[in-house]
Amino acid sequence: MEASTLPGRYFADPDVYREETRRIFNKSWICVGRASDIPEAGDFILRELNGNSLIVVRDENGDVRCFDNVCRHRGTRLLENADGKLPGGIQCPYHAWRYQLNGVLKSAPNMSSEEGFKPTDFSLSSLQCRTWEGFICVQRDPGGSGVAENEPAFWSRFRDWQLAELVPAHRITYDVNANWKILFHNFSECYHCSLVHPQLNPVTSAASASNDFTEGPLLGGPMILNDGFATVSTGGELCGDVFPGLSAEDRQRVYFYTLFPTMFISPHPDYMLTHRVERRSVDRTRIICEWLFPPEICSRSEFSPEAAVEFWDMTNRQDWHVCELTQQGVQSDAYQPGPYSKQESMLAAFDRHYLSLMNEQ
Amino acid sequence: MEASTLPGRYFADPDVYREETRRIFNKSWICVGRASDIPEAGDFILRELNGNSLIVVRDENGDVRCFDNVCRHRGTRLLENADGKLPGGIQCPYHAWRYQLNGVLKSAPNMSSEEGFKPTDFSLSSLQCRTWEGFICVQRDPGGSGVAENEPAFWSRFRDWQLAELVPAHRITYDVNANWKILFHNFSECYHCSLVHPQLNPVTSAASASNDFTEGPLLGGPMILNDGFATVSTGGELCGDVFPGLSAEDRQRVYFYTLFPTMFISPHPDYMLTHRVERRSVDRTRIICEWLFPPEICSRSEFSPEAAVEFWDMTNRQDWHVCELTQQGVQSDAYQPGPYSKQESMLAAFDRHYLSLMNEQ
Amino acid sequence: MEASTLPGRYFADPDVYREETRRIFNKSWICVGRASDIPEAGDFILRELNGNSLIVVRDENGDVRCFDNVCRHRGTRLLENADGKLPGGIQCPYHAWRYQLNGVLKSAPNMSSEEGFKPTDFSLSSLQCRTWEGFICVQRDPGGSGVAENEPAFWSRFRDWQLAELVPAHRITYDVNANWKILFHNFSECYHCSLVHPQLNPVTSAASASNDFTEGPLLGGPMILNDGFATVSTGGELCGDVFPGLSAEDRQRVYFYTLFPTMFISPHPDYMLTHRVERRSVDRTRIICEWLFPPEICSRSEFSPEAAVEFWDMTNRQDWHVCELTQQGVQSDAYQPGPYSKQESMLAAFDRHYLSLMNEQ
Repeated sequence: MEASTLPGRYFADPDVYREETRRIFNKSWICVGRASDIPEAGDFILRELNGNSLIVVRDENGDVRCFDNVCRHRGTRLLENADGKLPGGIQCPYHAWRYQLNGVLKSAPNMSSEEGFKPTDFSLSSLQCRTWEGFICVQRDPGGSGVAENEPAFWSRFRDWQLAELVPAHRITYDVNANWKILFHNFSECYHCSLVHPQLNPVTSAASASNDFTEGPLLGGPMILNDGFATVSTGGELCGDVFPGLSAEDRQRVYFYTLFPTMFISPHPDYMLTHRVERRSVDRTRIICEWLFPPEICSRSEFSPEAAVEFWDMTNRQDWHVCELTQQGVQSDAYQPGPYSKQESMLAAFDRHYLSLMNEQ
Repeated sequence: MEASTLPGRYFADPDVYREETRRIFNKSWICVGRASDIPEAGDFILRELNGNSLIVVRDENGDVRCFDNVCRHRGTRLLENADGKLPGGIQCPYHAWRYQLNGVLKSAPNMSSEEGFKPTDFSLSSLQCRTWEGFICVQRDPGGSGVAENEPAFWSRFRDWQLAELVPAHRITYDVNANWKILFHNFSECYHCSLVHPQLNPVTSAASASNDFTEGPLLGGPMILNDGFATVSTGGELCGDVFPGLSAEDRQRVYFYTLFPTMFISPHPDYMLTHRVERRSVDRTRIICEWLFPPEICSRSEFSPEAAVEFWDMTNRQDWHVCELTQQGVQSDAYQPGPYSKQESMLAAFDRHYLSLMNEQ
Repeated sequence: MEASTLPGRYFADPDVYREETRRIFNKSWICVGRASDIPEAGDFILRELNGNSLIVVRDENGDVRCFDNVCRHRGTRLLENADGKLPGGIQCPYHAWRYQLNGVLKSAPNMSSEEGFKPTDFSLSSLQCRTWEGFICVQRDPGGSGVAENEPAFWSRFRDWQLAELVPAHRITYDVNANWKILFHNFSECYHCSLVHPQLNPVTSAASASNDFTEGPLLGGPMILNDGFATVSTGGELCGDVFPGLSAEDRQRVYFYTLFPTMFISPHPDYMLTHRVERRSVDRTRIICEWLFPPEICSRSEFSPEAAVEFWDMTNRQDWHVCELTQQGVQSDAYQPGPYSKQESMLAAFDRHYLSLMNEQ
């Protein structure tokens, strides 16, 4: 047998959750959205990371910035709305301290008369910010391990699908009562497909699954679409156009990749399915699922992503249900680690990578 | 004075709750229902014990079995419905591992090809299971103290009431915001009856109470029904027939027994009232109250347990209210142990037994 | 710069909350209401202090008493209603133990026959009780620091406003999701007024604020009413009469005082605004706001406090909102202490007093 599942404390112990914050989520590149979510200067979105609110904003130079949503004066939360526009910078709603979009304190009423007060000492606390193929990623610790950074081969892999240019045609947010690792595990095997996904089975067979990334932060690989299915959708027909750059092989494939610790990326012949994974507590996870298409496809009057959305929404919900049942089981005192099968080799690889980070000196 | 009430931490401290799990609830025989709840092979009920889900099921041989509701593969909760039938054994909803009703793994898709995989290594985790006079009891630790086992005299005591054959004519579940011991205390004295139960007082007088079990896990004794009351019911009339085997004395008595740590058993001239006590957290307890009658009485077209149900439901609710007020008081920092009166000698005996288990080396 | 704001743990750590209980809230005089709330013998109100329920009652001699709401027998909560009348003393709803209004056990059914039982051993647990200018204050630890007691100058300060005789014409209770100190901070500066209170700005200017108590448990001072505003109210007109004893100066002033750790007192030309601050948990506070007027004003048929109530209710809600935003920010891991401005000198003084009590040996 491959290996064993993780001990129960990894799914249920708040101390493990806090240790993950320190060893993984403060050090890794965390996906917080798409560059297309904030196309213009002043556009912002709020995100939550490790229980703290973040502001992700495009500055005057067109660069994406990420700040803690905390005023440097009395600590007040600066922004409340989930997204919006900031025409004049970021103003604290309490005492009107005002920050530029690059985080520098621009004005603080009456503070200029305070002895020794230097506005430059009170810039917003910031996180590193990078964009790969349209995904905005942030990193708390500058010295942290650069998952995505170290894997240019991975990102270039999506060029044939024009990933950098794609925009979401649809988005669904799910709140799942399960630890984030259970969701990664679930996404990483099709052993469960025959029982859990009766509608997916005819489309692509678990037996066709293989893996081209098998160790480290990137894991996964292709499954082959059965005859009669041009993509994964209700009915099996395309929602968009097959990406023109795809090889003949890729036109009959769906890929399922996990990017530790916050993303699932699934290239389809005509669209890209992405899951952004937001850890919320030791037993709750938010999943933001998007269906990405080229903007020129989205602007067609007859375009609809409905068949792809419907199929994956159904499949997602089937998955979340067994994930929640698994959470309930593994947090029982009676749970003991069980054996991974050959079909679950990516789960064992995920656990190895996870434990290597958790046990790092 | 007899003794003093327990210090406040015993009613409010989550650490005490966990200690009780280890020293009492994992070692004692725990009542989980009646054999008549699962009459046929494949019938099951789910129960919760110490926060963990249990499957109680009748197997192909007619034996009652109890398993942790956790798959041995990935830890998934196997069953979700509170009760039902399992015609083909227990199948995990995630990867279709299938267990026989005796807990042995029958099939696990694709695992036969795994090197070194022996199905017999992956039977469901089980608890000991016994049935006394129709009550299904389970015990986590095989070496645990066998409360009920050690008391054959107690169980045989109910022969005159045909306890083994009785079936529930009615069931009410109550969720009470009080520690389980406060409910045992409440059931163990009638000092409160004059103020709390104005309707019970005319039926049977607190002054008539005596005790025939006064030390150890079994406590309690009879009260005498006043003239004009054939049983405890609204109106005082019988709902069923007086049990034919009862002595003249028992025909004018109601007995109130507590069986540590999960049962109250109350023989009446024509029925048996039972309370099953499920500890849920340090300040919440579920009570499942049943009115048991002989099956041949229940099948009479004119039979109704209504008068007994109505009376005890009213009385139960009166009790739960003062139990909840007591929980609120004893978890106050200002609470200090108070004096038990002579009428509360069974509470002092309960506390002695409880503390002896909690302090055992 | 003056000083820095407190570290985040003071606003978010349950251990700090418990330490405050021990070092501050069990030792200080705590305001629990007005003497006019319980005018006659037997009148009572319930209050919560440090998570424990208190009974505040007027006894047969007309004295105000304060007891823990816990029976000395089994610990049952004695009273449930938020207020009411106790014609015959305090009777426990469980076993009918009955206490006099001075807390002495009057009768306990059947206990007289218990050997060694002395009713005088079982008086209700009590707190010290004092009334200053109509405010009922209680103190848990007899040796505790006597905030109010030590400041006769402070209390006598309100003679011109007839404080002792005033009665509430209106009361509003607010539940705010913020630490109690954030509410004291908010009340102690008008630096936020220009942005947060656009309606207050024309009435009285932040620049007019000064302080006549600047160190210790009592802090604050006056602001000057602008021309055209006889008091603080919607429209700026008086709701009552100007207090006849006021100096010409005080007729054009509003005072804002904080009395550590449970009161804000704000004398106006024609009424007294009071906020009672009830700490509920590390991140929740209840505020009970009252508009006090002379009883003879209240009894006038044409009297209405509406203009004063409406104005302050709006202003209160503006404050609570920024307090809640501040709570969200300071409990973020990203929060770091920031600089107090000169306009926030009372906050720095509050923090000094607070820390001196928290760090006392």
